[in-house]
Amino acid sequence: MDYKLLPGIKAPSDVKKMNNEQLNELCFEIRQKMLETVSQNGGHLSSNLGAVELTVALHKVFDSPKDSIVFDVGHQCYAHKLITGRYESFGTLRKKDGLSGFCRPNESEHDTFYSGHSSTSVSAGLGIATANRLLDNGNYTVTVIGDGSFTGGMVYEALNNGGRSKTKHIIILNDNKMSISENVGSFAKYLAVIRSKPGYYNLKASTERTLNRIPSVGKKITRKLYDLKTDLKNKLYTQSTFFEDLGYRYMGPIDGHNISVLVDALEAAKKVNAPVLLHVNTIKGKGYKFSEEDPSRFHGVGPFDLATGKTESSSDSFSDKLGEYLCKYAPTNKKMCAITAAMGLGTGLECFRKSFPNRFFDVGIAEEHAVTFASGLAKKGMLPVFAVYSTFFQRCYDQLVHDISLQKLKVIFAIDRAGFVGEDGETHNGLMDVAFLSTIPDIIIYSPCCYRSLEADINNAVNADKVAVAVRYPRGGQADNVSVLQYDCVEFSTYGDKNAEICIVTYGRVTSQAIKAVDELSAQNINVLLISLNRIKPLPENAVDIMYTMKKVFFFEEGIRSGGIGEKTGFSLLERGYKGAFSLTAVNDRFVSQATVGELLHEYGLDAERIVNKISEDF
Amino acid sequence: MDYKLLPGIKAPSDVKKMNNEQLNELCFEIRQKMLETVSQNGGHLSSNLGAVELTVALHKVFDSPKDSIVFDVGHQCYAHKLITGRYESFGTLRKKDGLSGFCRPNESEHDTFYSGHSSTSVSAGLGIATANRLLDNGNYTVTVIGDGSFTGGMVYEALNNGGRSKTKHIIILNDNKMSISENVGSFAKYLAVIRSKPGYYNLKASTERTLNRIPSVGKKITRKLYDLKTDLKNKLYTQSTFFEDLGYRYMGPIDGHNISVLVDALEAAKKVNAPVLLHVNTIKGKGYKFSEEDPSRFHGVGPFDLATGKTESSSDSFSDKLGEYLCKYAPTNKKMCAITAAMGLGTGLECFRKSFPNRFFDVGIAEEHAVTFASGLAKKGMLPVFAVYSTFFQRCYDQLVHDISLQKLKVIFAIDRAGFVGEDGETHNGLMDVAFLSTIPDIIIYSPCCYRSLEADINNAVNADKVAVAVRYPRGGQADNVSVLQYDCVEFSTYGDKNAEICIVTYGRVTSQAIKAVDELSAQNINVLLISLNRIKPLPENAVDIMYTMKKVFFFEEGIRSGGIGEKTGFSLLERGYKGAFSLTAVNDRFVSQATVGELLHEYGLDAERIVNKISEDF
Repeated sequence: MDYKLLPGIKAPSDVKKMNNEQLNELCFEIRQKMLETVSQNGGHLSSNLGAVELTVALHKVFDSPKDSIVFDVGHQCYAHKLITGRYESFGTLRKKDGLSGFCRPNESEHDTFYSGHSSTSVSAGLGIATANRLLDNGNYTVTVIGDGSFTGGMVYEALNNGGRSKTKHIIILNDNKMSISENVGSFAKYLAVIRSKPGYYNLKASTERTLNRIPSVGKKITRKLYDLKTDLKNKLYTQSTFFEDLGYRYMGPIDGHNISVLVDALEAAKKVNAPVLLHVNTIKGKGYKFSEEDPSRFHGVGPFDLATGKTESSSDSFSDKLGEYLCKYAPTNKKMCAITAAMGLGTGLECFRKSFPNRFFDVGIAEEHAVTFASGLAKKGMLPVFAVYSTFFQRCYDQLVHDISLQKLKVIFAIDRAGFVGEDGETHNGLMDVAFLSTIPDIIIYSPCCYRSLEADINNAVNADKVAVAVRYPRGGQADNVSVLQYDCVEFSTYGDKNAEICIVTYGRVTSQAIKAVDELSAQNINVLLISLNRIKPLPENAVDIMYTMKKVFFFEEGIRSGGIGEKTGFSLLERGYKGAFSLTAVNDRFVSQATVGELLHEYGLDAERIVNKISEDF
Repeated sequence: MDYKLLPGIKAPSDVKKMNNEQLNELCFEIRQKMLETVSQNGGHLSSNLGAVELTVALHKVFDSPKDSIVFDVGHQCYAHKLITGRYESFGTLRKKDGLSGFCRPNESEHDTFYSGHSSTSVSAGLGIATANRLLDNGNYTVTVIGDGSFTGGMVYEALNNGGRSKTKHIIILNDNKMSISENVGSFAKYLAVIRSKPGYYNLKASTERTLNRIPSVGKKITRKLYDLKTDLKNKLYTQSTFFEDLGYRYMGPIDGHNISVLVDALEAAKKVNAPVLLHVNTIKGKGYKFSEEDPSRFHGVGPFDLATGKTESSSDSFSDKLGEYLCKYAPTNKKMCAITAAMGLGTGLECFRKSFPNRFFDVGIAEEHAVTFASGLAKKGMLPVFAVYSTFFQRCYDQLVHDISLQKLKVIFAIDRAGFVGEDGETHNGLMDVAFLSTIPDIIIYSPCCYRSLEADINNAVNADKVAVAVRYPRGGQADNVSVLQYDCVEFSTYGDKNAEICIVTYGRVTSQAIKAVDELSAQNINVLLISLNRIKPLPENAVDIMYTMKKVFFFEEGIRSGGIGEKTGFSLLERGYKGAFSLTAVNDRFVSQATVGELLHEYGLDAERIVNKISEDF
């Protein structure tokens, strides 16, 4: 497409010069650019399409980066990126060394705060607003947060503080009636009620504007009128007292696709000398037929055909298999329940939702609650399975300690997206779960490298293990070559030369790379035994027995080094008095940026080539 | 005192037989027993005194353990313990092998759920209620939660689910206007408004009772009337829509010290076939002059004089010193802010609160928000210090990863109650912080063993370190004998024989025990060098250099073994090719029950005697 306005936007100041007609044209171009790029690179389409006018209006009214705009999660930051000097580089979205799909302060001064995990933006915004108040610099702070993120408890913790603090902080509730799939819970129901109310705000804003033309005295009168209106409003719309009860001046709901209404509302919000919540109605997927019809499918999407909206049919995955195995047990095991934190689709639980709706629970983006809720279910003899992405599971650390491990309750955690996730980058990699879970007493951890092991692990978890179990597996499916593994026992499998004096130890996805490495090393006459751990906690003693006999152990770990299984294995050998050498390759205490999984495995020394190099260098 | 009724209460069924007069007498005796015991053993007095009538009424109306009563935190469970068969053993409260001060399912079938950390009870209760619904067993689930706990986000996550689920779950909001000190935030303000409203419920209940006497038809009419009343109520008390907006049938506020009103209300709540929130007004510290006057002082209290209310004057502590050191920097360092999650008193921040009220933030029991709020402050150049108990800091794992470490923001974490805490038991020990913090990139961890080191660490954190810093220290004060240490450098200090072939390595409080052990071993002609680490992450390389030269390294760690510094030190030696022996004594992946700190150090092999035994056995 031929872009007329967008290429000229080098900074938000260029947006400020535009009139309404131009702004609307700009929004059109922004949508086209998003569609063009995401259809090629994949990305988060629907939320971004819904927030275009809102973002443009924000940059028209506020003065970034002096004023801070904090986006929750960052699923609505593409328009922001396009008008803050990143149009030229937008084609690199989600690629190695390219633009992130989320806010990244190291990418632009306009990206206020790292985003990726949900429900942090009100707390962060309040912190920034408080600093601005203490520094008395007159800068504004705006938080943009979707209704889905409002299911996360941190938001309420922050509102509870912000409402009483009198700190000037503008919260935009971007209400698109969605979490990742349809939003759940009573708060969503409540929003549905106030969403449909006539636009109280519009009346108020225009009256206020008129009155403000009378200088000085106007403000006082406006104030009085405002209070009057608030009274009236409380009488008319008692349902919107939720935010007022929490100390916020509630404005809205307004049309989130009408630039001039948005600009008016933001200007009005700017003037209120109190915490404000502006309720904006938007349509997720707006402006593209297929995403408007099915916003969930285009929430996070791979490359697709722009003309037809068709995405590549995905091949089978660990997520699918999890759903399949659970659905195998659920008909006879009536105690089995499945829980998701707004990730029913991503975690493969759709079949369970459909077949066993009574025993399926989507709790919203509320991982902490999910774990303790599961704990309550388990307390009464149910068998809850909480399927969750590794990176979001970090939220539950205390609940795992206090409500699961301490209580000795059996809950199964199906940890998806364990290891590198690729294009979503540093906020989404699942590199910490093994390390933090390992600090918690009793919990068993499996890290299968193939469907066969996954099935065995789920079977163990359901039928044999007596305590809480975590089964973790990567995004995507199994590799073809894992079928060569010898399943000596359920705890680990081996491949290669059983008489070798050196061994490779790994677990999960890297197993496939290690198999290739064993073959290549063998071709170089270097004989190696591969031990692929399936149960990584407790460490299988008989696997450590084998390592103890080796001259050298090479451990490869797709996870954070500090507190990982490599360290623990090495330490276990040391305690036994092992005198051989031990080498650990893992992600050395840093955050991993976006790239393909293949690129990342290579970069961090975990693909076949790097494994071979590591070992052959040693000879 | 001569107890007439209490000794006869062997189970809740004995309460059910009593008339109102007897119940009131029973409440009097319960308070006396609590006062008698807590004045001797110490404990959580004020909250427990406030919840006596409520607890008695609960056991009068519900049928524990068939019906589940879930207490949040457990600061209100003493009355519950006294009437569920634990009167005889109540004198052992908080002592080794005695009754816990919190709910412990391993202690009684009436203790539904482990408690200790705040805001979990609505999630747990909802899980239990959901299981009861799925199992269709007709059992009731009651959650008892204070208004302070309502500042925690998990409560809202749970309400958001519970309100829409239609699962029968009765939540009792025990509103005593307090968190641990005065409750903060807009929700507390909101409660203050509805608290003062005339008792709407009382009218309703009595009408309903009358109508219910007409069987069958009565129910329908009641229902109709109820709806009518609800309408009316919404018109009269729009302020109470907060809970109704979240899908709960709101009842109250009622007098929480009037048994017959409580019994009526609970009976009515039982009949509502929907999620209910019953708002109960109580007085924290009720029934004891001194605790009514100053409930915060008697929130958690050591032994005190019953006649005068006088507590022993406490000696100085690491907490006091923290406050003192911060107050030293704050006048010149205008960027310094202090944050607490409802623990201003316990963490020693009172002086900061008084001297720098603008820069002091009590965020309520909201640790997750606290961290991300700090992150927002730091983003704009402030220097936030979040002082928090180790065990509650577990709540912030993801925020530390996502909002601190990833963002490379400098925030200081002052981690109090690190290590054994003693009488509060398994939910309160600070044994995990080192292990979970160690998994997070960049964060520096100090574990001072004395005030001098604490001061140096705070100085480093404020003036030198470029990234986030955690300074962790135990409950109580420094030991006298630490003055013998040689401060070779800020990272670690030494004591004993520099030419020794074996060394003891430890950090924090155990240092004092190790010094004694070195002296005793020396008297036995066993020469040992002690290395006391002050900075434990990153591990001081020059300390590891010294260990590398040893024949044997004995590491003693007051913390969880898995992922602790002992493992990391050993692994570091292994990687360097260390061929000596390594022995690690740490808390081996279990939860530690209540006892005095001295008893615990001994039990876990960390006092001088056990250290000496461990080393001399080896000779």
